[in-house]
Amino acid sequence: MIKAALSVLLVLVAVSSSFGKYTPKTGKRVPQTLARGWGDQLIWAQTYEEALYWSRSRNKPLMVIFHLEDCPHSQALKKVFSEDNKIQKTLDEDFIVLNLVYETTDKHLSPDGQYVPRIIFVDPSMTVRADVNGRYSNRMYAYEPSDINLLLNNMAKAKKLLKSEL
Amino acid sequence: MIKAALSVLLVLVAVSSSFGKYTPKTGKRVPQTLARGWGDQLIWAQTYEEALYWSRSRNKPLMVIFHLEDCPHSQALKKVFSEDNKIQKTLDEDFIVLNLVYETTDKHLSPDGQYVPRIIFVDPSMTVRADVNGRYSNRMYAYEPSDINLLLNNMAKAKKLLKSEL
Repeated sequence: MIKAALSVLLVLVAVSSSFGKYTPKTGKRVPQTLARGWGDQLIWAQTYEEALYWSRSRNKPLMVIFHLEDCPHSQALKKVFSEDNKIQKTLDEDFIVLNLVYETTDKHLSPDGQYVPRIIFVDPSMTVRADVNGRYSNRMYAYEPSDINLLLNNMAKAKKLLKSEL
Repeated sequence: MIKAALSVLLVLVAVSSSFGKYTPKTGKRVPQTLARGWGDQLIWAQTYEEALYWSRSRNKPLMVIFHLEDCPHSQALKKVFSEDNKIQKTLDEDFIVLNLVYETTDKHLSPDGQYVPRIIFVDPSMTVRADVNGRYSNRMYAYEPSDINLLLNNMAKAKKLLKSEL
């Protein structure tokens, strides 16, 4: 009897909590995340301005990832990137992170053009680290899944800040 | 027996799916969403650039919400806003939406200063609708929870685009 009452109560709670909430005509959507698949345990900045502020105030380098959800190269890199614990741990502890599916108005973030996937490091002094690049001369900031160790090395480079004192 | 085997299997699946995944020292985090509590069924732009692009290409007005997670006025407005089905439905069908916890570099988005909560409408022609404002003369783009009907009226105003033909 108590069990039955509890079940009824549970159903009522479930019904009332979803009752009246807006649902799109096309059905309920999965809420969008800021991680977009690049590591849902990391704390992502939303905008470049926010990321720069965090980078300066915490004196940590910034990694900006330009990507597109429907680009197979972005997807392939994202899979390896998000599953690599060393990358995830280092980013979580030593970096500010931002991933963008849209270009910003700041030309410094596209030193050799706008393409995806593209990874740009920025020093806390707000200097784009054009010297920290991948292995492709025509797309210097592109990485493939097989370049993940190069990316880790580049993260170590970016961690050596341009100025160690203020 | 089958039940026991099934239980073991379930435990194994649960363990293996979380095995090896990066977990911060401080414990597993809830992934951040782009909605930030303003309506998790809406499709939020991440950046102002992205929002402007969508607004122009879909010929829909843009609503930009400036807020802060730890501001009680933002929280109070967010609660009423996210639970108002008329607002949510209208935004979903007729608007491009962006919520920001950080100011942009574009001064047009702060016609009378930077404060939160602040709601600015932008026409698909990329003109900030400084004429669509709330009821407070010192903070013209601020809204309180009791202003939700005024906000709905302002959404109707913003839907009347500045140019109906291209």
